[in-house]
Amino acid sequence: MDHSTSLLRLIFLALGAALILLVVRSAFRLPRGIDTPTSTLFDDAAAAGSSCTRFAPWGCGQADRLTKPKAAPSHSHETDVPRHPLDPLTVGEINRALELLRAHPPFASSPSSLAVHSLSLDEPEKPMVLAWRKGADPLPPRRAVAVVRFRGEASVLAVDLASGAVTPLPIPASGYPTMTMDEQVALCFAPFRDSKFNATIRRRGVRLSDVACLPISPGWYGPAEENRRVIKAQCFSAEGTANFYMRPIEGLTVLIDMDTAKVVSISDRGAGIPIPAAANTDYRHARHMQEEEKAAGLGYQKVRAPSMEPAAPSGPGVELVDGHTVRWGGWELHLKADARAGMVVSRARVQDPGTGAHRDVLYKGMASELFVPYMDPSEAWYFKTYMDAGEYGFGLQAMPLVPLNDCPRHARYVDGVFVAADGRPYVRENMICVFERYAGDVAWRHSESPITGLDIRESRPKVTLVARMVASVANYDYIMDWEFQMDGLIRIKVGLSGILMVKGTAYSHLSQTRENEDMHGTLLSENVIGVIHDHYVTFRLDMDVDGADNSFVRVEMARQETAPGESPRRSYLKATRHVVQTEKDAQVRLKLYQPEEFHVVNPTKKTRVGNPVGYKVVPAGTAASLLDPEDPPQKRGAFTNNQIWVTLYNKSEEWAAGLFVYQSKGEDTLATWAERDRPIENKDLVLWYTLGFHHIPCQEDFPIMPTVTSGFDLKPVNFFESNPILKQRPTMEDDLPVCAATTA
Amino acid sequence: MDHSTSLLRLIFLALGAALILLVVRSAFRLPRGIDTPTSTLFDDAAAAGSSCTRFAPWGCGQADRLTKPKAAPSHSHETDVPRHPLDPLTVGEINRALELLRAHPPFASSPSSLAVHSLSLDEPEKPMVLAWRKGADPLPPRRAVAVVRFRGEASVLAVDLASGAVTPLPIPASGYPTMTMDEQVALCFAPFRDSKFNATIRRRGVRLSDVACLPISPGWYGPAEENRRVIKAQCFSAEGTANFYMRPIEGLTVLIDMDTAKVVSISDRGAGIPIPAAANTDYRHARHMQEEEKAAGLGYQKVRAPSMEPAAPSGPGVELVDGHTVRWGGWELHLKADARAGMVVSRARVQDPGTGAHRDVLYKGMASELFVPYMDPSEAWYFKTYMDAGEYGFGLQAMPLVPLNDCPRHARYVDGVFVAADGRPYVRENMICVFERYAGDVAWRHSESPITGLDIRESRPKVTLVARMVASVANYDYIMDWEFQMDGLIRIKVGLSGILMVKGTAYSHLSQTRENEDMHGTLLSENVIGVIHDHYVTFRLDMDVDGADNSFVRVEMARQETAPGESPRRSYLKATRHVVQTEKDAQVRLKLYQPEEFHVVNPTKKTRVGNPVGYKVVPAGTAASLLDPEDPPQKRGAFTNNQIWVTLYNKSEEWAAGLFVYQSKGEDTLATWAERDRPIENKDLVLWYTLGFHHIPCQEDFPIMPTVTSGFDLKPVNFFESNPILKQRPTMEDDLPVCAATTA
Repeated sequence: MDHSTSLLRLIFLALGAALILLVVRSAFRLPRGIDTPTSTLFDDAAAAGSSCTRFAPWGCGQADRLTKPKAAPSHSHETDVPRHPLDPLTVGEINRALELLRAHPPFASSPSSLAVHSLSLDEPEKPMVLAWRKGADPLPPRRAVAVVRFRGEASVLAVDLASGAVTPLPIPASGYPTMTMDEQVALCFAPFRDSKFNATIRRRGVRLSDVACLPISPGWYGPAEENRRVIKAQCFSAEGTANFYMRPIEGLTVLIDMDTAKVVSISDRGAGIPIPAAANTDYRHARHMQEEEKAAGLGYQKVRAPSMEPAAPSGPGVELVDGHTVRWGGWELHLKADARAGMVVSRARVQDPGTGAHRDVLYKGMASELFVPYMDPSEAWYFKTYMDAGEYGFGLQAMPLVPLNDCPRHARYVDGVFVAADGRPYVRENMICVFERYAGDVAWRHSESPITGLDIRESRPKVTLVARMVASVANYDYIMDWEFQMDGLIRIKVGLSGILMVKGTAYSHLSQTRENEDMHGTLLSENVIGVIHDHYVTFRLDMDVDGADNSFVRVEMARQETAPGESPRRSYLKATRHVVQTEKDAQVRLKLYQPEEFHVVNPTKKTRVGNPVGYKVVPAGTAASLLDPEDPPQKRGAFTNNQIWVTLYNKSEEWAAGLFVYQSKGEDTLATWAERDRPIENKDLVLWYTLGFHHIPCQEDFPIMPTVTSGFDLKPVNFFESNPILKQRPTMEDDLPVCAATTA
Repeated sequence: MDHSTSLLRLIFLALGAALILLVVRSAFRLPRGIDTPTSTLFDDAAAAGSSCTRFAPWGCGQADRLTKPKAAPSHSHETDVPRHPLDPLTVGEINRALELLRAHPPFASSPSSLAVHSLSLDEPEKPMVLAWRKGADPLPPRRAVAVVRFRGEASVLAVDLASGAVTPLPIPASGYPTMTMDEQVALCFAPFRDSKFNATIRRRGVRLSDVACLPISPGWYGPAEENRRVIKAQCFSAEGTANFYMRPIEGLTVLIDMDTAKVVSISDRGAGIPIPAAANTDYRHARHMQEEEKAAGLGYQKVRAPSMEPAAPSGPGVELVDGHTVRWGGWELHLKADARAGMVVSRARVQDPGTGAHRDVLYKGMASELFVPYMDPSEAWYFKTYMDAGEYGFGLQAMPLVPLNDCPRHARYVDGVFVAADGRPYVRENMICVFERYAGDVAWRHSESPITGLDIRESRPKVTLVARMVASVANYDYIMDWEFQMDGLIRIKVGLSGILMVKGTAYSHLSQTRENEDMHGTLLSENVIGVIHDHYVTFRLDMDVDGADNSFVRVEMARQETAPGESPRRSYLKATRHVVQTEKDAQVRLKLYQPEEFHVVNPTKKTRVGNPVGYKVVPAGTAASLLDPEDPPQKRGAFTNNQIWVTLYNKSEEWAAGLFVYQSKGEDTLATWAERDRPIENKDLVLWYTLGFHHIPCQEDFPIMPTVTSGFDLKPVNFFESNPILKQRPTMEDDLPVCAATTA
């Protein structure tokens, strides 16, 4: 070992010591007093925190002009008060709950040892919410539910904010709570405390200061991995690019004890695999602008993104009442940020054009869980089977949306208020946006042709309301849109964007591979394989169609052969309705050649001509999990075994993979609940829909992955007496503001 | 029979005589000289033609203010000259071709007996088109192809516009040419010449002047219906509503000989079925506005449709060169109206951001055929199995688009030039629109989360080019969108809108039906059943990925079990590529649990790391035909037996149901061609994709049917070395024109 290496080593030892302090401070942060009500720790981390120095060469303070996030908070949340029974906990309420928790034995003995994994509203019972009338009734009693860890033990507690009562609740049989953000940040630095780790990095010719590590949830693979909360770090070289994801240090997996932040073991198998080059991987627009200025730059012609015209003075646009209630186009709904689910839509009600009344459609809808299995069984990859909501916190990972870039002009924004590991509240600004959309489409149109000789050209432009949240779970960005149409349809969409998780390889050209070699993916660039993976997003949809008690109806379509002599036709398609009795009969695997419709109806409410009022779930393109049902990840992800499930309403059955997902064995998932086969006819029922993607990467996914979108609809079916569009008033042509129009 | 009835009868006899003249004039119109170059017959029919008087009580001149079509033609087409090898025939060229046809024996003996069913460009051979360079080369020789009928015999002829040569081509073994619009219009009046028809109408208490009949193609159901060109009229009462479709005179089917316009027979079975009421069926906006003024009107709040901001002075927007060539965002393509296909996209080429070169993607793409079977085997319904392109002319049915209603502000429009039955050209104005779309979506985005501590919020707004055409085939409106993304993706969408084809019934409430009675649909309103039906749209996509010779690759994804001890995982998803050798192996039925990707690659062009460049077809939600394959309609619609087919390029194989579809037996469809099992590896190949819809109507489809959309993508797969978005220049935030913005 020469002297320069020794010097470097010395520097890193010193750095390492500093990092230990940082990690300890992050993971077990001493409370700085609950009189400091809000923390902007995470929003400011890059600009001011010490994690920033780590990435200094290309990180901090270099946000591009184009994408610079809004700096000033929309308003101070410190004086917020709840105004709706479903409003999330306010800063004040969180502080009150924290105070009560810290005073609760045994936590009172060492409040600083209390790690708060979640602290959120314990929603009032449904009848109380339904009975509440704004302006007339006080809010139902406010309660919080907390998931905490204290001296290695997890607890779930109900906290009554008025009475101050703290009541322990049962905890799941396996698994750990969602990680705190503090842990996730801190654990990225844990590997650097291990000399073996540092040595292998150096052997690969990488500077430690260029290394970035990501915390990868380990899943669960049998007894060997039980009884200890662990995480696996995988590392990248960030030299020369902001897109370190494209520069994996392949084959290196660091197993870390999450409670001690100590390295348990290191798996180091990829020594012969080069780190892919940084060239052409940086995606930052400002960088490309700089390069463009230097070189003549071929590339595409510039395209201006036409934004939407402002809502005219006469139009109502989107009404945002009391911070969380949205009114638009006959719709009224409650919208909030949730640390685990991301965005929650509640009490979605649509106006009946016949009566003017607002009618119940959806009591609560949200992404309940995600499941993202990668398709490589090798040592450094087999465990990558993420559950982004239950493990990482889908809402925790939702960054502030950037006006104009992420949401169009005139969007309204909703902040999230979350809780740090020490229990202190902090504000996630602009986490949700809401906007009115016109995309040039028509909601309905009809022209008469010369056949009838009528001079009729009717059209209703399609205008919708969009509520959006984007979760950035490390490399992937999930764009979650809820779109509400004026005809009562709700379209739920998931857009996958961001950056691929790639694998290093010695190959730089396909000609080097063996015939039919299973690379588990596609060679995207020299030394880069895009690994095949799936994405599943499971939505929990507590449908209340004109009231809580509903039935699930399967409408089967099948070929019916005609009787001899009945018709010149031999066959036709016949629809048969089947009212589902119990949960097992509501488990649906979609089949193109055995088509069905899936209705949630209110059997006690009929239309004028006698059809039960309902909504149907309309799948679009999707994918199904093909993993072995007995494979450990598929057991944990058993909620993806069907595309549709219907269960009896149970307030505690909100999370499809169970309440504690981290390292869980999958013994308490939606699949378990539905096996109980409870009766669901004319009951308060919950519809679950899973949409999926198979992703075989291609070179267009390098070095960034363009948005791919899928979704499904909740669509009125005999809910209205006739089409609501008839009663609508599009004002497309009149008095729009006139801009300096240059029609090309 | 009392005197008033006799008087009415007299009036109708007189009217009938007038109608005969009209029909004869329409079907066998005497040429008024080919020096009258253009006819606006069909556009003006409602306002000035005699068919209008027929619907006078609620038709003519009552177009709503909101939907009034643009009156003035965009430009006179009489002096147009072709500027691109694929430009459609001009007015001058049509007149020249007609002159040559009329001079051709045997037509010269009685040119007025010649019925022109189609007259369009005979596209030059592909190598000539590919070799042509604008500005440098003259256009390849211009030729027309005509489908005509003369004294009961159909002919197909090639017409060389320069040499004047007219060459007969082979004709299909069965079927008749696409109906002319003149016939379709005329045949609506044919029933009124039959006293039995008039009598049954009167017996039902309907005034003849309120009756509107539609020409329904009869399909083909065996020898009894052969050797005569026939059509079936079905009739409606238009009393009290523009939406006569909701008022069927059920069970009444009039079989008409198309060549004589005489009634062959009448099937009259629905005497006991009332005609549904007119109340609440009219959809016209102006009517609703009038009603609104009278009554206090509950209904939805008004919603303003925000249009798109104009392209800024600095932005290029959509470039429309020489009337048919579109340039936008790296794309260059040729766009034209076609009487049968509707809209044809040719020579779609996308710029490579690495080299700046335009690369071939799609030589020609279009809707080749539609298949719309209704699911009722009874006498008045079994035959409804429309093929809208080959029977009715999908382009012929495309009405002028209404600016702002059908396409957003700043759209550009392309006219169609078609041919009337007498051979004279006429202009269909504003038939296609092209516009730049921003819908508030993101093409790509990535935020770094606190895990990595980077302050990165990057986003690229999604801006696309849309080319749109809408065909109104009587009640249904098909909105056909081709959307081009800057990342090379082409999204093809079909929106179904318009009005349902409904069935009369004696039932006014579901309680009157028998248990499990097969109504073939849903009771939508008193006496109205929405009949179950399917829609299939088959696209012909002549892919030329970086050149004409391509291969079709099926990438199968299947569960792979791991070997014992190989991994803690039991299974993963493995992708296997399979280069298809012949046409039979390219027939695909999609399966959710046996997923595949479908690539069209150029095996001779590889990326830097060795992947063949390609495009893949990406299905979305769809439906498959479940009819008995031996059922006559399914034999004719056999091209829907698979979702995907690939055939060897053959210029004559353009129409999936065959060249002559009307009353065809289905012996010359895509299914026949593909059975030849020709080799398709590294050949010029054609990809066919069929998307489908099952439609079980619901009350929301009454009295109008809101738009339902499906589609599929053609997506680059290793076509680019890396993602093109990196090289793009969104200018979202800079110097947009400032309107009088009122942020709500």
